[in-house]
Amino acid sequence: MVNTLPYGAGLDSRLKESFSPRDGVRGIEKPKALYDLIPENNEQLKNLAGRHIVSIRQFDRETIVQLCKLAASYESQGDLIYKPLAGKIMISAFYEPSTRTRLSFESAFHRLGGDIMSITDRSTTGIAKGESLSDIGEMFTNYGDVVVLRDSERESVFQMIENLKIPIINAGNGIDEHPTQALADLYAILKWKPELAVFNKQRAESEKLTIGVIGVPGRMRTVRSLLLTLGLFSDCIQKLIIINPDHDIFDEQQKEELLAAGLKIEQSTSLRKVAGELDVVYINSIAWIGDTYEKLAGDITLNKQTALKKDSIILHPLARGEELDVSLDKTPHNWYFAQARGAVFLRMALLTCLTQRINLVADSPVDRPEENI
Amino acid sequence: MVNTLPYGAGLDSRLKESFSPRDGVRGIEKPKALYDLIPENNEQLKNLAGRHIVSIRQFDRETIVQLCKLAASYESQGDLIYKPLAGKIMISAFYEPSTRTRLSFESAFHRLGGDIMSITDRSTTGIAKGESLSDIGEMFTNYGDVVVLRDSERESVFQMIENLKIPIINAGNGIDEHPTQALADLYAILKWKPELAVFNKQRAESEKLTIGVIGVPGRMRTVRSLLLTLGLFSDCIQKLIIINPDHDIFDEQQKEELLAAGLKIEQSTSLRKVAGELDVVYINSIAWIGDTYEKLAGDITLNKQTALKKDSIILHPLARGEELDVSLDKTPHNWYFAQARGAVFLRMALLTCLTQRINLVADSPVDRPEENI
Amino acid sequence: MVNTLPYGAGLDSRLKESFSPRDGVRGIEKPKALYDLIPENNEQLKNLAGRHIVSIRQFDRETIVQLCKLAASYESQGDLIYKPLAGKIMISAFYEPSTRTRLSFESAFHRLGGDIMSITDRSTTGIAKGESLSDIGEMFTNYGDVVVLRDSERESVFQMIENLKIPIINAGNGIDEHPTQALADLYAILKWKPELAVFNKQRAESEKLTIGVIGVPGRMRTVRSLLLTLGLFSDCIQKLIIINPDHDIFDEQQKEELLAAGLKIEQSTSLRKVAGELDVVYINSIAWIGDTYEKLAGDITLNKQTALKKDSIILHPLARGEELDVSLDKTPHNWYFAQARGAVFLRMALLTCLTQRINLVADSPVDRPEENI
Repeated sequence: MVNTLPYGAGLDSRLKESFSPRDGVRGIEKPKALYDLIPENNEQLKNLAGRHIVSIRQFDRETIVQLCKLAASYESQGDLIYKPLAGKIMISAFYEPSTRTRLSFESAFHRLGGDIMSITDRSTTGIAKGESLSDIGEMFTNYGDVVVLRDSERESVFQMIENLKIPIINAGNGIDEHPTQALADLYAILKWKPELAVFNKQRAESEKLTIGVIGVPGRMRTVRSLLLTLGLFSDCIQKLIIINPDHDIFDEQQKEELLAAGLKIEQSTSLRKVAGELDVVYINSIAWIGDTYEKLAGDITLNKQTALKKDSIILHPLARGEELDVSLDKTPHNWYFAQARGAVFLRMALLTCLTQRINLVADSPVDRPEENI
Repeated sequence: MVNTLPYGAGLDSRLKESFSPRDGVRGIEKPKALYDLIPENNEQLKNLAGRHIVSIRQFDRETIVQLCKLAASYESQGDLIYKPLAGKIMISAFYEPSTRTRLSFESAFHRLGGDIMSITDRSTTGIAKGESLSDIGEMFTNYGDVVVLRDSERESVFQMIENLKIPIINAGNGIDEHPTQALADLYAILKWKPELAVFNKQRAESEKLTIGVIGVPGRMRTVRSLLLTLGLFSDCIQKLIIINPDHDIFDEQQKEELLAAGLKIEQSTSLRKVAGELDVVYINSIAWIGDTYEKLAGDITLNKQTALKKDSIILHPLARGEELDVSLDKTPHNWYFAQARGAVFLRMALLTCLTQRINLVADSPVDRPEENI
Repeated sequence: MVNTLPYGAGLDSRLKESFSPRDGVRGIEKPKALYDLIPENNEQLKNLAGRHIVSIRQFDRETIVQLCKLAASYESQGDLIYKPLAGKIMISAFYEPSTRTRLSFESAFHRLGGDIMSITDRSTTGIAKGESLSDIGEMFTNYGDVVVLRDSERESVFQMIENLKIPIINAGNGIDEHPTQALADLYAILKWKPELAVFNKQRAESEKLTIGVIGVPGRMRTVRSLLLTLGLFSDCIQKLIIINPDHDIFDEQQKEELLAAGLKIEQSTSLRKVAGELDVVYINSIAWIGDTYEKLAGDITLNKQTALKKDSIILHPLARGEELDVSLDKTPHNWYFAQARGAVFLRMALLTCLTQRINLVADSPVDRPEENI
């Protein structure tokens, strides 16, 4: 970057106006409405205690809805006075580096009062020297209370589970799944339209969503997990349009599984052609394959000129590239920033459940006696 | 390194005498005197709430003096019983790696009771994949309460501010500024001579300082920020001597700005020639230019043989090279260790203000109601 | 790794049975017995306050036994309600990268309630730019309350001590020592046979142990420190068999020092030949030499087919390679997992003492007044 200004020139204007802390994030007023609409049902959440979270396939609709209610509770209040995870230790193991997802989990855990140990680079670990993930799982059992793992290999999380006796969250395993991202995506949608949280087989067609997903279902973990999640909410969805210049985009059995879940699926090669009918546009153009990535090209870019439906929202798992233009940031279509913000609260909710601390934050009493706190 | 001793030989003597914790740091008795001398004026500090700190140009003399009073308060007491920043999260983003400055900020934040998330390497971040700093600023808003940023590019901090709605501290932006280092430099000087904290236009010439600065004002961020700071204390300074083998050492307009602030500036190519008239010797020989550095050479080295003025002090932003010989460490001229120690307390003071927690630590009540704690 | 299953196939079975948290770790019921057997004697532990821990040579038998009692106390109880190290800061400086040892120390410190600052990579530090370890020690004094250092150079810890005024723990200095690993090894042995904690010069030969150590005493820091530790417990040991394909395995003076401590030492080139007479098998096949390592080869591998003595135990400092087969994991010989688990508690005990917090956790009152807490 070339310096074009003398040092100190125009400093005031470059420091921007003063700001009110945390204002301007779209959707911030919404979690209360979602929270109020969902009846509390902690049985679902209690059952998450001590579980490994590897795939969206482990969830049912009601558990996801209850997690979103708890997330909305966290998002509606200020800093927690009482910290339910005080004394707990999270091991944040990002063998495939990722600042965004790592900090999202770490922020969630800190806000709950817990402590963190981070691994940010595979090259400095025993794995580089040939240690097995199973042995590392045994080690983590002794050192922490919950593990968050990202790895470029699909199998790593399963290998680590072999000897692991504390819960693990899959934060991305190769091109397989990224379940907490999908839960955060769903949470954003429910904040936008809380009424979708209530199961309704008789929902009017006019109240159902048309959702466009730009991506490769068979090669993007965020898309794979999102589609499985949407399969649990097929009562809310009129149709799903997968937008991709290519046609061969599904894994073996993947489309069949989604159809069996009740989704109606179409494909399009042009975002421009279908943009006007979409209520939700989910866009992502990068698929991570091991240490490298593939980038989607073609008619898949969004900007302020795109003829979007009024009141439609855009979601993006971020980080974004050119496919999502910054000209959309200040428009009401921008729900991707609210989505990223909400991911922290959704992860707070999940972490609270896995570590058996739901009884400390639930409004109504929880029956089952918990371990000593 | 070659081992010259059998294993275990002379172990006792190599483990050194037992020590009293934290003794032997020069200047440790001084903060109380500084604290007592400055009348409390929290209005200045309250105005720092939620501000971005990018440049020394944002400060006036009284704000700096009040920050030094708060730093002196922290330095005079033991560990804080009540932690004013409990529950707050600092994002420590060192895209240009630096252990010393990173740990100084992290130690400050931990002592205030806060939690920390660290980024220690640009190569493992989304920036490496092309994510914009503006998007990262948006992300940080969701994840933390304050950001500390070091980057080798001058513009990075301004780009991050675009979407950032939590305070950021510039911990070094290329060759531009390093404001907290300069504040720590000033704090060391005020601990040494507390009477300089009081503005006095009629100060006798004999009470004014002659300050020598070894470095390149136009290419060293520590020097640039220090000189701007000294410009606010021109009532305390008889003259400033910039010591450098070269003559073309100022940026465009830089010298004019300092002269306008009331400083008298001389230049010298030889430290030896002027050493005897200096009250304060500020020495630094490394300028970081992007990922590499330039090292100053010439007659700019200090050691025990240098004919320093009695009672003069040496400051150095550290890490040091050969320009500052260890033979000076045990002499009364060594204030560079006290300076490094004080930097932690100065940063504690600043972090307390930015996060709106000044009312929790001030002796006298603060008027304005604060957000809920 | 090749994916052989369709995505989602067999998920349930791959997620394993549900588990009881932290069950299945051998030896977990043992610490209470060890704790009960050892009379409390906090004088020994009080003397560790503020000490540097570099070598096993600094310890006597009684101090080690008392540390093991405190470790057993920590291991026998659940999470600490009162956190004795709240407000303390540990600097975790792993210039030679090691996830296992770093996380073990960090977990220990977090469980005691303290905060942590980590350095995980030498290349991002001032050392890379030529800063001296002595100056870094001065810096650490200002930033933390205790340092844990691993470095590939033997001399680094001594250089850092020069200006350091807070305690440091040597977590591995080249091929020299790794004292806390050896203390953890001994703690595992005492949990297994608590009666060995009591000094008994008249111990019957049949109650003494035959210990086999696979490794290179002169080139493996874990083995060097372990042998020095065993030298303090020679009343418990019938003989020590060093198993190594080579004969020239001791450092100058090393064997003489161990013989003088009362150990009987034999050597063998074949693990198979002596396996049947060993009560404890300590196995390690990797020696770290600077940034690289040597791997032991030959008849030194253990698996389920090895003709081990009934009731014998296997210890390994981990990470392991092929020398210790996973087929042994589910056998009663597996004490290496208990050893790794216990290392966290042993380090908790040591950190409590170094930071002068023993009076906060001791059962009986401690006489000497402590600094303000």
